[in-house]
Amino acid sequence: MGSGRFVLLLVFSSLIFGVFSQPVLKILPEIRKSARVDPIAGDRKIRVDDGMFCDSWRFSVETNDAGLWKQIPERCVNFVKEYVTGDRYASDSVVVAEDSLSFAKTVKVSGHGKDVWVFDIDETLLSNLPYYELHGFGSEEFDEKSFDEWVELAEAPALPASLRLYKQLQQLGFTVVLLTGRTEAQRNVTEKNLLFAGYSNWERLILRGPSDEGKIALVYKSEKRMQLEEEGYRIHGSSGDQWSDLLGFAMAKRSFKLPNPMYYIA
Amino acid sequence: MGSGRFVLLLVFSSLIFGVFSQPVLKILPEIRKSARVDPIAGDRKIRVDDGMFCDSWRFSVETNDAGLWKQIPERCVNFVKEYVTGDRYASDSVVVAEDSLSFAKTVKVSGHGKDVWVFDIDETLLSNLPYYELHGFGSEEFDEKSFDEWVELAEAPALPASLRLYKQLQQLGFTVVLLTGRTEAQRNVTEKNLLFAGYSNWERLILRGPSDEGKIALVYKSEKRMQLEEEGYRIHGSSGDQWSDLLGFAMAKRSFKLPNPMYYIA
Repeated sequence: MGSGRFVLLLVFSSLIFGVFSQPVLKILPEIRKSARVDPIAGDRKIRVDDGMFCDSWRFSVETNDAGLWKQIPERCVNFVKEYVTGDRYASDSVVVAEDSLSFAKTVKVSGHGKDVWVFDIDETLLSNLPYYELHGFGSEEFDEKSFDEWVELAEAPALPASLRLYKQLQQLGFTVVLLTGRTEAQRNVTEKNLLFAGYSNWERLILRGPSDEGKIALVYKSEKRMQLEEEGYRIHGSSGDQWSDLLGFAMAKRSFKLPNPMYYIA
Repeated sequence: MGSGRFVLLLVFSSLIFGVFSQPVLKILPEIRKSARVDPIAGDRKIRVDDGMFCDSWRFSVETNDAGLWKQIPERCVNFVKEYVTGDRYASDSVVVAEDSLSFAKTVKVSGHGKDVWVFDIDETLLSNLPYYELHGFGSEEFDEKSFDEWVELAEAPALPASLRLYKQLQQLGFTVVLLTGRTEAQRNVTEKNLLFAGYSNWERLILRGPSDEGKIALVYKSEKRMQLEEEGYRIHGSSGDQWSDLLGFAMAKRSFKLPNPMYYIA
């Protein structure tokens, strides 16, 4: 930041905050936090406020540019809350489902039941928003105990766009395989919850067994897809809110990333 | 759409447009185009206006959910214009560059010159915005002739965030390889343009040669990365605005997708 700009900021903060009789230097970090001028943008200085910063953060998260991230940036917690509880999350989900269906319609389904679409479950078929609304929308550290209690309730609602896609794919003749990071111990409640939310007639529900313990999701899910391929299934499409649902080996011909700015699973 | 909602729309349009004495039925499609109620969202109806639709479209494009797309949706042309000419594009680019640098700093660079970062050129190192501003921001069909004329000028400016990243990576000891879909016939003007924009000291500039003709970018770029690996280079990072810069085989350990809602290259 040039010294001229610094002086301007001082003047600006005096004008705005002077009426509150607060010391200027105490205010400065707040201004700079909420609307920093980023030198990286070069000659054409950009003002990055929280909304724009968080939108860019979301871009980096959803494209997997951010890689492993453990916490929503503090200044973006409210942004994430408004996103997931507002219409944008639903709208994004609808467009992803439309993309998925467009591709699915181009697939020549054989009718032998070997043409597969793989779905992840959490934040893909089922929404855990009722849980995350009570736990800071992902901003709190993940608490396995309380989350497992939520899972035991088997009351997670469907993501509406995914439920509709699910049924459309079945109408097109696809065989549906569910591949989740949930464990075998959660098989019964998971089935119960899926039925409760309106899902039915899946071919297989694959959960983490004892031999999958300790594997990162990307490897565990790749291995299970590989086994499906070895059984003669053709995996045309795959839907998941995590890149670890989609990348790795034995990848689907087309992968569909659903939005999820609340948490990241490697 | 329920008939009740339809009646409401009629009433609404009468109220708003009545003063202009236009027939209601002529106006309706316009209203429905700009703010449609999407049935896919389930019980909780969402109103998708152009801004929200285009933001969701951009999500699907940047995550590669949309797959091959040939045209910006008509209702999103202005959205794309405002995005690429406004601060959001710059802000997104900055965050991607920051992600890239964070990863780069975790790499143990050997000092033998074999630790590589691969950069695409167009819309990654260089911005063709001055060209696209005159050609509908990607909404017009791609015209190779006029684009090649623009390339011959060698005046494309740097994307500021990328230029900064480029220099930081070199300071960290990375060897920079440039891998572009431009052809060997454009080698001289491309080098000239890169220098003009502030780039220097790349190890290699790889362009499409005669044997690469007709290959899709994803295959061409994968093959070139594979050759680099066979020569003993370790490709740690790769930056590109197209998924075809990043996916395929011989992928970098980490890939960084830069924003580009103007066009898609398979």
